[in-house]
Amino acid sequence: MIFICDKTKLQDAIAIAQKAITGKSTMPILEGLYIEANKNTLTLIGSDKDVSIETKLEADVLKEGKIVVDAKIFGEIIRKLPNSEVKIETLENNSIQISCEKSVFNLVHMNSEEFPGLPQINENIIFGIPQNLLRNMIKGTSFAVAQDETRPILQGILFEVENSKLNLVALDGYRLALKSELIDTNNTINAVIPGKTLNEVAKILEDNECVVSITFTTNHILFNLGNTKVISRLLEGEFIKYNALLPQDYKLLVTVDKQAIQNGIERASLMAKDGNSNLIKFDINDDAIVITSNSQLGKVREEVSANMQGEGMQIAFNSKYLLDVLKNMEDGEVEMELTSSISPCIIKNKNAENSKYLVLPVRLVK
Amino acid sequence: MIFICDKTKLQDAIAIAQKAITGKSTMPILEGLYIEANKNTLTLIGSDKDVSIETKLEADVLKEGKIVVDAKIFGEIIRKLPNSEVKIETLENNSIQISCEKSVFNLVHMNSEEFPGLPQINENIIFGIPQNLLRNMIKGTSFAVAQDETRPILQGILFEVENSKLNLVALDGYRLALKSELIDTNNTINAVIPGKTLNEVAKILEDNECVVSITFTTNHILFNLGNTKVISRLLEGEFIKYNALLPQDYKLLVTVDKQAIQNGIERASLMAKDGNSNLIKFDINDDAIVITSNSQLGKVREEVSANMQGEGMQIAFNSKYLLDVLKNMEDGEVEMELTSSISPCIIKNKNAENSKYLVLPVRLVK
Repeated sequence: MIFICDKTKLQDAIAIAQKAITGKSTMPILEGLYIEANKNTLTLIGSDKDVSIETKLEADVLKEGKIVVDAKIFGEIIRKLPNSEVKIETLENNSIQISCEKSVFNLVHMNSEEFPGLPQINENIIFGIPQNLLRNMIKGTSFAVAQDETRPILQGILFEVENSKLNLVALDGYRLALKSELIDTNNTINAVIPGKTLNEVAKILEDNECVVSITFTTNHILFNLGNTKVISRLLEGEFIKYNALLPQDYKLLVTVDKQAIQNGIERASLMAKDGNSNLIKFDINDDAIVITSNSQLGKVREEVSANMQGEGMQIAFNSKYLLDVLKNMEDGEVEMELTSSISPCIIKNKNAENSKYLVLPVRLVK
Repeated sequence: MIFICDKTKLQDAIAIAQKAITGKSTMPILEGLYIEANKNTLTLIGSDKDVSIETKLEADVLKEGKIVVDAKIFGEIIRKLPNSEVKIETLENNSIQISCEKSVFNLVHMNSEEFPGLPQINENIIFGIPQNLLRNMIKGTSFAVAQDETRPILQGILFEVENSKLNLVALDGYRLALKSELIDTNNTINAVIPGKTLNEVAKILEDNECVVSITFTTNHILFNLGNTKVISRLLEGEFIKYNALLPQDYKLLVTVDKQAIQNGIERASLMAKDGNSNLIKFDINDDAIVITSNSQLGKVREEVSANMQGEGMQIAFNSKYLLDVLKNMEDGEVEMELTSSISPCIIKNKNAENSKYLVLPVRLVK
């Protein structure tokens, strides 16, 4: 194998493929980056047991071939090279030579035959969605993915397609996040994708409206971004029927400026850190939310102006769960739908229908 | 005690005084921030056993007094408040109330009588030096301070004043850093200040030419920045006679572009990490430095153009020590003075006399 390519383009491609390489595998070959030079195109693949990422770039291929190199050291070498043309060629005794200006590296390589390669997927696109939109949907739900391993299905995000709508849903025992967007498809899909994989996908998705095409198979999802494909396995099992968790009605609607309530909760939570309870109390009355908290360190009282429709109410929360939600919402006014001090609270943007969050209150011992 | 002051100014002052509060003391009072309100001035003091920092700011003092509050939580509260006026007043039962717009915090305070206060120092200024110059001198030497505790005096930086010149010197068993500047004084000083303290001082020094005035006593150094004073204890004992370590002569003078040699060493060291030896070899000949290194991973060859005066030479180094030096030097050409493969190497800026670095080579087993 012999090829010449631009250092910066190669570096960018390595950074993409490397996102699949966690270094946590017990198989040494999965710490490797697969490189194939073929017809003026380089194909790089990184892989672990859950996810594979393939990306392509142009190169001047003088001799075709394929190898696997240690991704970490190879990535570091390329990153540190001058911004110039890089020549890579295989030598005898299982090594490659990397040359760039006056730098010459010799690096051992692994056997490309041992590399598992990509799962075979017949691309049958279900729908396309702008990259920035999907990125926002992932970021707006992934914080609610369960961190503990007692219910593996909750470590994933549900991709639900029905009635030309894509819903992403994540939940743990304390909160739920739902983001929705209209898409152009007549298909119906219900698949759960590991949250960790989606966080890596979100890093690759660009902040523009170029479309990412999505294919589902029985066991996999494929994101096609053009030069880059990400394939993740699906989580096995049935996701929780989340619709049954969302209250259909409420008794008190509170409208409040997002930044004002977020700042108030952040300050109140300074006093709530003691013993990690994060407990803050809301007293909602007279068109204001009074937030209080106290601990051994002292106490705090915050007042935030709000618009109320319904009877006043007292309710307590874990401040962390409210902040996770608010930090992921857009600026502007948010609505809180409340029923009682022991019922779930729904939080939405006042002027956008595409997000819905649920946070359970903390039941206070009287 | 009752006072009103600007939130941002208070926050900035807390950040300065907090740099002395390491949280590593066994005395709880030293986790506290001392606050004294007196004649429209607030005085804040943070302290640990090695260093004390006092800073002053304007305030509208309605009732004089002094307290000590937990520095960490107090700092977090002030930081999170709106950018507005803050009112702080003592209440009964050992607490203070912090009010700002619609936020009210109650926080317990400690007894100000228990606070050790500043060491009494009769300010008798020895010399003044622009803040940015002193900051660069500290940054340019502190990396060479010994990390291990076997010789406590080497955990400090020598401040040596003689012949109207200030020298800062740090060294461990492997390298030495010397920075010099002319100053206006006839005094002679030889004092060693803990490196950790100086790193904190460097963070407070601003990037401008305002003068910091320096006073020495038998046991302390005082940096007076105007509104802020930093007092550090001196390390006991005699510093190493560093001049005896610096070779007076050399056989080979190599002049090389700083960035080019630094980049070459950085790349070569990628292959030298194996086993943490960081070993790289220089072959200096024909107006070029060829840097090589190898490990189980592979090998590397870098070539850097240089100007040579003297016979060619081979010499090996720990790449980390060379990089520490080069990262702290200004861009441009650097000179390396070499005598043999087992003699110290001196590194200087070609066009500036104010820095001198010594790095010991690694002796290769033939």
